[in-house]
Amino acid sequence: MTAGRFIAFEGGEGTGKSTQSRLLTDALTSRGIAVALTREPGGTPGAEAIRKLLLAPPGEGWTPEAEALLFAAARADHVARLIRPALDAGRWVVCDRFVDSSRAYQGDASALGDDRVRQLHAIGSDGLLPDITLVFTVSDEHAAARLKARDGGASDAIGGRAAEYHAAVGAAFHAFASAEPERFRVIDGEGSVQQVHARVMAALAPMIEAAP
Amino acid sequence: MTAGRFIAFEGGEGTGKSTQSRLLTDALTSRGIAVALTREPGGTPGAEAIRKLLLAPPGEGWTPEAEALLFAAARADHVARLIRPALDAGRWVVCDRFVDSSRAYQGDASALGDDRVRQLHAIGSDGLLPDITLVFTVSDEHAAARLKARDGGASDAIGGRAAEYHAAVGAAFHAFASAEPERFRVIDGEGSVQQVHARVMAALAPMIEAAP
Repeated sequence: MTAGRFIAFEGGEGTGKSTQSRLLTDALTSRGIAVALTREPGGTPGAEAIRKLLLAPPGEGWTPEAEALLFAAARADHVARLIRPALDAGRWVVCDRFVDSSRAYQGDASALGDDRVRQLHAIGSDGLLPDITLVFTVSDEHAAARLKARDGGASDAIGGRAAEYHAAVGAAFHAFASAEPERFRVIDGEGSVQQVHARVMAALAPMIEAAP
Repeated sequence: MTAGRFIAFEGGEGTGKSTQSRLLTDALTSRGIAVALTREPGGTPGAEAIRKLLLAPPGEGWTPEAEALLFAAARADHVARLIRPALDAGRWVVCDRFVDSSRAYQGDASALGDDRVRQLHAIGSDGLLPDITLVFTVSDEHAAARLKARDGGASDAIGGRAAEYHAAVGAAFHAFASAEPERFRVIDGEGSVQQVHARVMAALAPMIEAAP
């Protein structure tokens, strides 16, 4: 039995990650690769319950510290109950958002600091990292138009934050990709869905060709 | 304005902490001291929502890592929204359980380790510690009888764990008190409610006499 591969999709809101993660899952499946498609926060009953608290805070809104701890708790459940068992069984895991979202949203844009977010990930999930992390980038105008088309402008406690927050998130993803080029692939998210999908498949070609 | 004092009540299940924290609050109030009586996990709307997840896990039960992160998240909300504002306003805070419960239950008895629980507390709540922590001790037989009288033996996801788990918790509290005698006071929880209350008042006499 070969251990599976772990591929994460990252990027700001409205960059097309979710659509592309589904297309990749279909493409891998059609090649005979067993794939678990999942997302964060969520993916398991425990993590989905935490997701509800994160997106609709019951009090005055979470402090950056509480928010980072809740994301790390959801991820700990997701890793222990779904991601690690799948990888150990030789399945591939395609995950819409993972720890780099916490680094970008809580660590950088909320100014909690990257070190603390990584400490939480070390404690909660033994520091598990994807084999490849795809970062989707689009222009701010493109993201705004896509979000508006998707939900008429309605959003949750995190998606609804100010434009400066989302700009900081995008800058953070770029910085992570530059600092760790062996793990990250930056994908241009503009163009047709099929054009972007072709870029994803090209970025993953070496991994897919090496699959047993 | 004088900053308030922070007193935590700790101990295993069925040691009388909750009753004694209410009696202390009444005694302080009758001396003209403004007191916020609170408890963990909980104390704020956000923390109470997390408490529900902790006591009735929606999935297969939390891993020790996820459980510790959830407790730290609840505590971060509680500290930011209730405890620190009360202390800053000069009020005293009496809290039924605080970080030493996480150290005893998640750090020691669940074998996550004290260092990791303290790291989570440093990140979530800037490492805030009580001025005085009262640890209530009773014999195992006494605790079992008190719990049975209270709820007929029914219990939640944590209270219902094995006797060895609860014995490890009790041993952990004793070790903490020995390691940090300036912060801890061990209170014999056996005898009448009024006898125990008198011990609490004696332990806190220097702090109460120094109150403005």
